[in-house]
Amino acid sequence: MPLIDSSTGNVIRGYTVEQLRDAARLMRGYDMVALCAAGSGHAGGTLSIMDITAALYLHAAHHDPSNPAWPDRDRIVWSAGHKAPSLYLGLAFAGFCALEDVVTLRKLGSPFQGHPHCLKLSGVEVSTGSLGQGLSISVGMALAARLDGRNHKIFCLMGDGEQQEGQVWEAAMEAGHYNLDNLIAVIDCNRLQIDGWVKDVMEVEPLADKYESFGWNVISVDGHNMEALVAVFEDARQSEGKPVVILADTVKGKGVSFMENQAGWHGKVPNREELTLALRGLRVADEIPVERLLERAKAYQAEAEQKLEARMPHVSRNYWWNASDSMKVAMEPTRKGLGQSLAANGGDERVVCLGLDISGSITISDFYAGKPERASRWLSMGIAEQSATSAAAGLAREGKLPVVGSYATFSAARNLDQIRVSVCYSNLNVLIVGAHAGVSVGPDGATHQALEDLFAMMGLPNMSVVVPCDVVEARKATTHLLLEQVGPKYIRFAREATPIVTADATPFVFGKANRIRLRHQAANFAEAFETRLDEDCRDEGEDLTIIACGPEVPEAMRAAWILRQEYGYATRILNMHTLKPIDREAIVRAALETGAIVTAEEHQIGALAGQVSLVLTETPRMYGHPIITAAIGIKDRFGDSGAPWELVKELEVSAEHIAVKAAELMAHKREPVGAASHAERA
Amino acid sequence: MPLIDSSTGNVIRGYTVEQLRDAARLMRGYDMVALCAAGSGHAGGTLSIMDITAALYLHAAHHDPSNPAWPDRDRIVWSAGHKAPSLYLGLAFAGFCALEDVVTLRKLGSPFQGHPHCLKLSGVEVSTGSLGQGLSISVGMALAARLDGRNHKIFCLMGDGEQQEGQVWEAAMEAGHYNLDNLIAVIDCNRLQIDGWVKDVMEVEPLADKYESFGWNVISVDGHNMEALVAVFEDARQSEGKPVVILADTVKGKGVSFMENQAGWHGKVPNREELTLALRGLRVADEIPVERLLERAKAYQAEAEQKLEARMPHVSRNYWWNASDSMKVAMEPTRKGLGQSLAANGGDERVVCLGLDISGSITISDFYAGKPERASRWLSMGIAEQSATSAAAGLAREGKLPVVGSYATFSAARNLDQIRVSVCYSNLNVLIVGAHAGVSVGPDGATHQALEDLFAMMGLPNMSVVVPCDVVEARKATTHLLLEQVGPKYIRFAREATPIVTADATPFVFGKANRIRLRHQAANFAEAFETRLDEDCRDEGEDLTIIACGPEVPEAMRAAWILRQEYGYATRILNMHTLKPIDREAIVRAALETGAIVTAEEHQIGALAGQVSLVLTETPRMYGHPIITAAIGIKDRFGDSGAPWELVKELEVSAEHIAVKAAELMAHKREPVGAASHAERA
Repeated sequence: MPLIDSSTGNVIRGYTVEQLRDAARLMRGYDMVALCAAGSGHAGGTLSIMDITAALYLHAAHHDPSNPAWPDRDRIVWSAGHKAPSLYLGLAFAGFCALEDVVTLRKLGSPFQGHPHCLKLSGVEVSTGSLGQGLSISVGMALAARLDGRNHKIFCLMGDGEQQEGQVWEAAMEAGHYNLDNLIAVIDCNRLQIDGWVKDVMEVEPLADKYESFGWNVISVDGHNMEALVAVFEDARQSEGKPVVILADTVKGKGVSFMENQAGWHGKVPNREELTLALRGLRVADEIPVERLLERAKAYQAEAEQKLEARMPHVSRNYWWNASDSMKVAMEPTRKGLGQSLAANGGDERVVCLGLDISGSITISDFYAGKPERASRWLSMGIAEQSATSAAAGLAREGKLPVVGSYATFSAARNLDQIRVSVCYSNLNVLIVGAHAGVSVGPDGATHQALEDLFAMMGLPNMSVVVPCDVVEARKATTHLLLEQVGPKYIRFAREATPIVTADATPFVFGKANRIRLRHQAANFAEAFETRLDEDCRDEGEDLTIIACGPEVPEAMRAAWILRQEYGYATRILNMHTLKPIDREAIVRAALETGAIVTAEEHQIGALAGQVSLVLTETPRMYGHPIITAAIGIKDRFGDSGAPWELVKELEVSAEHIAVKAAELMAHKREPVGAASHAERA
Repeated sequence: MPLIDSSTGNVIRGYTVEQLRDAARLMRGYDMVALCAAGSGHAGGTLSIMDITAALYLHAAHHDPSNPAWPDRDRIVWSAGHKAPSLYLGLAFAGFCALEDVVTLRKLGSPFQGHPHCLKLSGVEVSTGSLGQGLSISVGMALAARLDGRNHKIFCLMGDGEQQEGQVWEAAMEAGHYNLDNLIAVIDCNRLQIDGWVKDVMEVEPLADKYESFGWNVISVDGHNMEALVAVFEDARQSEGKPVVILADTVKGKGVSFMENQAGWHGKVPNREELTLALRGLRVADEIPVERLLERAKAYQAEAEQKLEARMPHVSRNYWWNASDSMKVAMEPTRKGLGQSLAANGGDERVVCLGLDISGSITISDFYAGKPERASRWLSMGIAEQSATSAAAGLAREGKLPVVGSYATFSAARNLDQIRVSVCYSNLNVLIVGAHAGVSVGPDGATHQALEDLFAMMGLPNMSVVVPCDVVEARKATTHLLLEQVGPKYIRFAREATPIVTADATPFVFGKANRIRLRHQAANFAEAFETRLDEDCRDEGEDLTIIACGPEVPEAMRAAWILRQEYGYATRILNMHTLKPIDREAIVRAALETGAIVTAEEHQIGALAGQVSLVLTETPRMYGHPIITAAIGIKDRFGDSGAPWELVKELEVSAEHIAVKAAELMAHKREPVGAASHAERA
């Protein structure tokens, strides 16, 4: 049964098997173009699931593209959110959205977010991106359909690596318990995940036995045989009394020879040359207007950039990184400091690293790279953040020094209760790595941008929290936390390359802020500054203080430069790398000596700003001292897809935002202290 | 193999099957005494697992009570933490601790916490209490043993309801993947959980098929047949190449006739008469020094209370609730407001309630109690907080108004990523109930005392957060959030009865603080106060402000009374029931008009205090106005077992603590403003 006119029940358009095959082939081509234009994304999994997508969106599902909210439509829940482009192409080919728009994939403000968002694109049933949630959402939808007496089906598309998430088995149990025969799960079994073969990372087979034991009907199919897929979807619709899972045997990267069965193509996209090769191999080079699509993407991007620049705070010159001779910096992602430290210190037999399937990207795999003698201390745990966290606690209880990390949204939120009870309550030596935190993970979009992790981590008793400002500090901080700091510890890294502003000789003392002051102009921007432990410094009569952590420290330094150049203000910068315990003395000193404080955090405002304000108002030494503050950070909103540096601007955490906010604050500071107060009290 | 001398490898003591049976019978008796003395706890599950406990601690496990840290000991991970008394009795009978001390169970400062804590009692391998974490910890321990080349076994004891937690299946998959044949799981299959029969709450069977499909060897046994248990443990030790799970068929409440197979005895304990009956039924009445044990418990309690009182801040009289004619209040738990609202508003066909196995206690079951027509809208989801949260999102996406709740540690932490992505990112109408939050859940101990939940909940975009101050406000707030407030919403309740200080006519406006002022003396304490919307009030020249939320509001009122009586201060109280969005205007008004603010929260300091301070320092209208604050709340520590009101004192959040802190602040306020400032700057 194909696309339907919801007002009449008539078929709008039917597809033969041959037409579906053609559609899938074309969809693969458009997928390659969109990914190439985006410059990031997931090639392998979008290709493996594409035949399923075509069969589902163009044939198996009952829906009406002109009425996406039709109550009797079948629901399609795209649980493997990283395969969003396939979903978008399914929608586009079915007529829910314009096909050529898909090429704006992953760009700032696009409805085609890195992971699907139902509030941005009609036809997307639910927002996904954090693996393992879709089947539960589907259970909720299936229960709702039953309550409402409706007969539509709920399709849920998952990956095989995703089956490592415990939540999937909670949902599977629920679906079995409630005999949800209106629920059809499809697993794209392409046997590969980021870290390698599923069987090596964390074996999920035998999936058929597992699902049967959880009360499901199981159907197996060749996920690239269109005729079989069509038949299997029909069979699945007929299931009675039990939910159905379709185990689709697929090939990752299917259709593009050089991507097939290559784990490396999980989170990689073709460049322009590879695109040409791919389209040729798919035999779609003549059917897709490649150049026009790439132009369309470029034009969208140019317009988005223009709009963004128009919204930037006004400064008289271009102070951007490396834009002029005095702004030169080297850049490297802070996350690399993790790998450097683990490579250097992993010889300690107590060190054990747990892999959560993005090991290369977060650099935790540098622990064992080229060091076979450490292989036994590398424990691949799959996409199962909760269990890995508690397992790390078990290892720590036995005297090990475990390191466990993933995207911070998964390693410092998905597993919060495990961090709290298994790790913190027992005060165990577990180093938790929150990688790709802040907005700099970029085009992946909001689901993967940890902007709230510090609230939870700083709130836990016994926990230490460090947010290093650059790759050098990240290495030092990792080493300190791993080997010296007793108890639970959380370290937060960014994904994108950010300026290197410290050197080997720069002090890093856990719990002690560094003071950074602009001394002169220098070819290397970082060398224009002097950095010392705050407690070793004397007051130099600075006009204001910027307290920052993580990649906001370089931004604060650039803001100090702008403030000097544009306004003539002298700025004290505090690098508050340790957020817990926070250096209260440095905050009080800055307040008493400069009277005005701007905080800057690549996080929802408050993790840093709230702590600083609390110290300012409740420290008896501060009583009677009026202090004024302003906060730079994310303003209680989710992130967006976009380039990392675009998002720094979009979410208003750039040096320009800091500088202009600081200048506003200075204008207030120059008003007579207490004048308003007396007037209002009178 | 029995208890071992770790220095020689010799057997210290062996037990015959008959002796093990006797030990189990006696342990059941001691269990009943300890639970009776504690006044709370879990009778049913401690009885079902007691034969297993005796077999394991006295026979199957290799360990040495005189050397609890012996590296080659078998590890026993007590994953079903609520069955702690059985663990304690296993330890005591094996000689790890004094048997008579177990009767201090659940009392303030006791090593015998409501849920096991490894930092308090030697012999407890890991801290547990949040279900589903133990198997993962065991996996970590088993991997550590393998890394260290040790041959000991790791035993992990779980319940059958616990199998609903997805984390268990993550761990099961890991154990299978790594062929952990040094891991032996035991499931106490007593077929009952809090909400009823496991098969009705959320069927977990066929467990044998499930574990086999996850790569385990499965052994079934009658969990009350000592001979069989002894044999089965021996078999399990011999397993090679795979982890083993022992499915022990048991009877909840086993050995005490009136408790057997009764779900109601899950979280209930015998009173003095029932104790006598139970001991008689167990044929241990003559073997256990009941009176001496109860005396011991009483003496411990008296001493704990004395110590606690000695640490209380000094006030001249007893101002405790109902201690004098002017302190009379009625008390009811705030959680009951949830049930009242759901009972009243559940007729709305959109309302759907999801049960997470503590439905009666958190009163969410009042939704359907006595109303069979609502039965289909009651969805039991088992102990699976993550999936239930995403399922609620699915229901909301379909137009329902789902309500999902549990202990706040589980419904607002275990499921944080699901709340973030499934619910908040899509801005769905899900009402999340954080029940039993704060310290007032009492004897259950730290694992169950949510003291960090507000950090995570307030940090999420799109989320509304309300913490009602009493049962009346709780009912109003629930109704508002359920039916009026669009988007995700979090409401936080306490378990213990707390003073009723509002009435039907008291205003409750979402997002607007109430101002409470002491007017006169009254027989009913609450009637001594006048409560109005803060924005409708004029400044009355109060000396200071206390900003409080939840059950700290009545404490703040009592503090205001103490401040009036002891110090002559007039206090403005703000009931900040809505924490997000917070009433910034009310905070600024209080600061400008009173100049001194004490915050009071039954939470780690900062959820309220940090917000208030941030408003105070960053609001331009406040610039130039010196403001001084002090914060009452939990001081970055975990809670403890103890009576709810003892914990209010122990964790320093009583009215007395507020009042004395406020008086200290007032002493500072009276110093000349800015004097110190000028001196220090000079």
